[in-house]
Amino acid sequence: MGNTIGKIFKLTSFGESHGEAMGGIIDGCPAGLKIDFDFVQNELNRRRPGQSAVVSPRNESDTVLFLSGILNGITTGTPIGFTIKNENHHSGDYDHLKDVFRPSHADYTYQQKYTVRDHRGGGRTSARETVCRVVAGAIAKLVLAQYNITVQAYTSQIGQIKLSKEYTQLDLTKTETNAVRCPDAAAAEEMIKQIEQTQQAGDTLGGVITCIIKGAPAGLGEPVFDKLHAQLAYAVMGINAVKGFEYGSGFAGTAMNGSQHNDAFSEKGSNANLTNTNHSGGIQGGISNGEDIYFNTAFKPIATIMQTQNALNAKGEIIEMKGIGRHDVCVVPRAVPIVEAMAAIAMVDFILMARTNKM
Amino acid sequence: MGNTIGKIFKLTSFGESHGEAMGGIIDGCPAGLKIDFDFVQNELNRRRPGQSAVVSPRNESDTVLFLSGILNGITTGTPIGFTIKNENHHSGDYDHLKDVFRPSHADYTYQQKYTVRDHRGGGRTSARETVCRVVAGAIAKLVLAQYNITVQAYTSQIGQIKLSKEYTQLDLTKTETNAVRCPDAAAAEEMIKQIEQTQQAGDTLGGVITCIIKGAPAGLGEPVFDKLHAQLAYAVMGINAVKGFEYGSGFAGTAMNGSQHNDAFSEKGSNANLTNTNHSGGIQGGISNGEDIYFNTAFKPIATIMQTQNALNAKGEIIEMKGIGRHDVCVVPRAVPIVEAMAAIAMVDFILMARTNKM
Amino acid sequence: MGNTIGKIFKLTSFGESHGEAMGGIIDGCPAGLKIDFDFVQNELNRRRPGQSAVVSPRNESDTVLFLSGILNGITTGTPIGFTIKNENHHSGDYDHLKDVFRPSHADYTYQQKYTVRDHRGGGRTSARETVCRVVAGAIAKLVLAQYNITVQAYTSQIGQIKLSKEYTQLDLTKTETNAVRCPDAAAAEEMIKQIEQTQQAGDTLGGVITCIIKGAPAGLGEPVFDKLHAQLAYAVMGINAVKGFEYGSGFAGTAMNGSQHNDAFSEKGSNANLTNTNHSGGIQGGISNGEDIYFNTAFKPIATIMQTQNALNAKGEIIEMKGIGRHDVCVVPRAVPIVEAMAAIAMVDFILMARTNKM
Amino acid sequence: MGNTIGKIFKLTSFGESHGEAMGGIIDGCPAGLKIDFDFVQNELNRRRPGQSAVVSPRNESDTVLFLSGILNGITTGTPIGFTIKNENHHSGDYDHLKDVFRPSHADYTYQQKYTVRDHRGGGRTSARETVCRVVAGAIAKLVLAQYNITVQAYTSQIGQIKLSKEYTQLDLTKTETNAVRCPDAAAAEEMIKQIEQTQQAGDTLGGVITCIIKGAPAGLGEPVFDKLHAQLAYAVMGINAVKGFEYGSGFAGTAMNGSQHNDAFSEKGSNANLTNTNHSGGIQGGISNGEDIYFNTAFKPIATIMQTQNALNAKGEIIEMKGIGRHDVCVVPRAVPIVEAMAAIAMVDFILMARTNKM
Repeated sequence: MGNTIGKIFKLTSFGESHGEAMGGIIDGCPAGLKIDFDFVQNELNRRRPGQSAVVSPRNESDTVLFLSGILNGITTGTPIGFTIKNENHHSGDYDHLKDVFRPSHADYTYQQKYTVRDHRGGGRTSARETVCRVVAGAIAKLVLAQYNITVQAYTSQIGQIKLSKEYTQLDLTKTETNAVRCPDAAAAEEMIKQIEQTQQAGDTLGGVITCIIKGAPAGLGEPVFDKLHAQLAYAVMGINAVKGFEYGSGFAGTAMNGSQHNDAFSEKGSNANLTNTNHSGGIQGGISNGEDIYFNTAFKPIATIMQTQNALNAKGEIIEMKGIGRHDVCVVPRAVPIVEAMAAIAMVDFILMARTNKM
Repeated sequence: MGNTIGKIFKLTSFGESHGEAMGGIIDGCPAGLKIDFDFVQNELNRRRPGQSAVVSPRNESDTVLFLSGILNGITTGTPIGFTIKNENHHSGDYDHLKDVFRPSHADYTYQQKYTVRDHRGGGRTSARETVCRVVAGAIAKLVLAQYNITVQAYTSQIGQIKLSKEYTQLDLTKTETNAVRCPDAAAAEEMIKQIEQTQQAGDTLGGVITCIIKGAPAGLGEPVFDKLHAQLAYAVMGINAVKGFEYGSGFAGTAMNGSQHNDAFSEKGSNANLTNTNHSGGIQGGISNGEDIYFNTAFKPIATIMQTQNALNAKGEIIEMKGIGRHDVCVVPRAVPIVEAMAAIAMVDFILMARTNKM
Repeated sequence: MGNTIGKIFKLTSFGESHGEAMGGIIDGCPAGLKIDFDFVQNELNRRRPGQSAVVSPRNESDTVLFLSGILNGITTGTPIGFTIKNENHHSGDYDHLKDVFRPSHADYTYQQKYTVRDHRGGGRTSARETVCRVVAGAIAKLVLAQYNITVQAYTSQIGQIKLSKEYTQLDLTKTETNAVRCPDAAAAEEMIKQIEQTQQAGDTLGGVITCIIKGAPAGLGEPVFDKLHAQLAYAVMGINAVKGFEYGSGFAGTAMNGSQHNDAFSEKGSNANLTNTNHSGGIQGGISNGEDIYFNTAFKPIATIMQTQNALNAKGEIIEMKGIGRHDVCVVPRAVPIVEAMAAIAMVDFILMARTNKM
Repeated sequence: MGNTIGKIFKLTSFGESHGEAMGGIIDGCPAGLKIDFDFVQNELNRRRPGQSAVVSPRNESDTVLFLSGILNGITTGTPIGFTIKNENHHSGDYDHLKDVFRPSHADYTYQQKYTVRDHRGGGRTSARETVCRVVAGAIAKLVLAQYNITVQAYTSQIGQIKLSKEYTQLDLTKTETNAVRCPDAAAAEEMIKQIEQTQQAGDTLGGVITCIIKGAPAGLGEPVFDKLHAQLAYAVMGINAVKGFEYGSGFAGTAMNGSQHNDAFSEKGSNANLTNTNHSGGIQGGISNGEDIYFNTAFKPIATIMQTQNALNAKGEIIEMKGIGRHDVCVVPRAVPIVEAMAAIAMVDFILMARTNKM
């Protein structure tokens, strides 16, 4: 269970890291959408390992094969099936993990839950699963583009290097100009330096991704349980290694007074915005108000480190182990397009639901 | 849409603050559960306004009336319908709000979404809706009790007063001994002082609630989208005024290295726990590992303040307005049982889902 | 589980025959719908026992109480909660059934499923539960009326008295002019006679209800599993005592050749219809084509008879029993508004889903 | 929408007749199930065209490729993704249908619904889509086998040749011994003769399939909307060309009296069965009682005939057309495994749901 997201625009995904292929089905994509295949592939390329010195060298072409639902480049309203081959699997690399539970991985919990598990490269728990999300996210972005809605994320923190500027002070078009996807060049340089140092120490890093959704009309979100932010939280909390979510003023806003925190309506005509401030993060009562929607997602440091650690084996014994093989030091830069994808999927679902709200 | 939560154990709620009654239906509660009605009512009393000097004086008995699904105090497996009357509504109090959108409330967004809205006391957006969640949460807790699982929350921050101790250093049995539901007496006193001062200034406060789930067996949670923490996040993000969620090491964990963050397995027999640390918050790969599950929920300061603010009227004009009537300064103490309720509902759903995982 | 129907326009129902009240929640009803309360009550009156000599004399006012979701007679888009009191319960009447499983009732199966059960008046298995469906159906009809879609059902068979005319040959406005809801006066008279004779014999009857949906636009229905007719079948098969469903040519069509069965497109302008015949029942490939949708629903004879029968008791012994109390001879006349209600609920769901099909 | 069936054991399917591949995802299959790949392939072979002289000569190997969810022949609890290639597509055959709506096909309705459509071989409306159902059905049967539940269907009517015997009078092991899948050799011969004659006339036939589920324990089915028979009806009504469903006594039972129809409980020890008769079809109040479950499914005659008919073109003109290419005369023999598959899928879902009913 749990491999489907969405109520109208729905992604169901399948695939293990070292199985034949990853893939998914997008059901509920409206008919008549033109698919820009280059754009979809480019989104996949953004997620792909081996893009730069600071990310994992595993190199797969990650070419998506669409099997249905699109005719002459236009969606037909029928489900969009797709696969992405697993080209580069060295299953042998993982033999030493067959009966071992690595610390802070999902090895132990999958074993407890299912009794059987695919240990090769993490199996279903591998971040490779997110490739399917990026495909669906790319199509979701194409739907959103018809509504002039954009979803842009960037790295706002890696380890202890934290961007001090708000998103409104940044030029987001610069996000893709460096390996860590931080739109601030100086901070990006520091982050890269920290990654390199950490890599040399055989250690790993976490971080934070900030995501901004612009152009969403007022009225999206379904009270009471399916608040816009509750579904955004659900969507991004499902990404591997995520430990937290906050939108608008978030955790920092808890220390403010109401008189500071309230977003006063702006004088008529004084500016293009509805409110003078946006602590609400574009969402009030779970429904968008037309302002920018923005949120932060926290990622823990990667669990696979190149240092000797205690692990557990199937007999319940503590054994020593050390990470080998190809691994990122920090998942955050590669997770930027994944956060965008999940946010886009959630937004399209709300766009379609909102069509049913009124007579 | 969006008024149902859960996949097997499902709550659907209805009701507006000043309508006839609040209510809900719990479908999927297993047959054969003994209902402790005193416990259910006590949970409602914990949420009820007017419990102490620091919370809203609105006083309603909040007596739940069960209409179905329970025979001689035992659940029959059929849906449990229930209502809670709205006894104390002074609809007249809200006439001045009919054509006014208050800042940082949901007035404007509901109007944009639905064109019509019940403006009396916030209508559906009122926190009074949470009374239904507490009923379902109480029943969920009774299910969990059969599994020896407990869900306990407490106030860990109000405004700028933040508890410095971890939950493991606190005596959670003391949570209910003070008006702010903080198990640390000294911190509680400071919090109460801050609430009083803020009230005198006509202002409001936010804060943080920490919640701990003990006794959950390993194996709960459904990868990939329905990770245990993703559904917990979804559940609590649907509570009014919530701005953020983090579990385990959360946002703070993003600044740690993997070598610090990883939860090493404990030596066989050295202690009762699986791991020496619990930065994972009891969840690895979206599945419980048997350790304590814990998470924080961020609440923004209440939007209704007793100071003059700019509001918008239906004609698009800025007007001055000032909060009147009965309002809390800080929602956090009363939200403690609500966070517990939502967590309990999510946990029962996973308990029941887990019964279907294996042949 | 299983107490909710619909994907967007959703009814969740609760209630046992002899509990405090029946009730339900309609979630997903579009905002801005004017509720004609007299119409809703009239639909309930059509379903109510005691309307004529040929139906059960149990007499309850069946007044629906709306608790939320409607303001000044207009839906607000929030969930519509409602209850109908159980006024006339003589629980004592059923003491003799506490440990007895009646033949062809659900006593045995509920007991097997849940271990506990409410035996009073059938508990949850009572046809009284359909009162909630009629409320939701009435509101669904009001939605459909905005689209000029009507749903009309009538009795086409009782016992061995079967109407020989097609619906196109009948004046459906006459359906409500007799106690059996058959628009053909002569057949109605025969049916009434058969009911009276059967009643004297202490026996019961089944029958068939035909339902016609007029005005549905082309394009409703969701391939492949949620075909329009598959959801209609699902909706009416959930009514008590239903044993079969067929639409268009149905079972009779299985004996036709394709050349007879195919609905040829009509000559341009020759008539108002798309096709010359309508064996398709207005549905092709699971999607409406704009022609009349029509279907038949089969009802078994009522299981409670006024004759001595073998029953099973909790000890596994065969005992003799005889129906006592107030019971219909034939459920069909009263089920007419229930079939309409279920069809209307399904149709509104498709109307709303169809809004999401295209860009 | 509408491409997923099931609540716990869920199949989502994709694919158009002349696209790259058909495929699907089975989510919710319990971990630890041994997959008999030969059995799965054999089920596909049973559905495959070109098996005998009386079915369509289109010949594809219909080899299923499992991409995930199975390790060393055992399910892992993660989603089972699979594809079946479309090997034998002659898209050119269908050019003449691009702007033509064939009578009693889904051409017109898809066009009205989606504006665009894949006209090649029926696109998504092709019965080729059922190949995915057979894969999921085969796995469902393997789950059911662990519970000693079997699902067996056979042809009980083709055109006007109707089997006069009940299933209890037949030797179902003979079903696969003839081309029409009728366990009665004499009737089968007549059916084959009728198919041959109809084929020579360029015409087509409908028919009825009877399905029997043996070994289901008492207690399956979820009142009130998700009655066991309501979900069975929904499942099989989603198969192409189906026009009706009845279980137990079905439509014939409507003409019986209650005293005849009621299934009296059998004397203790007198036989292996709970009841002397089984008009209930093994289901009472929507829940299985442990007796055999049986139902009939009606199929209309195939719409593509080898005679000249009126069709409609995109300009709204009536044009003459005649079927060409490879087509079955009667879908019924090949639909036997499809009915079994859909019934098996529904049954597994209920088996898993039933695990959650009691404390």
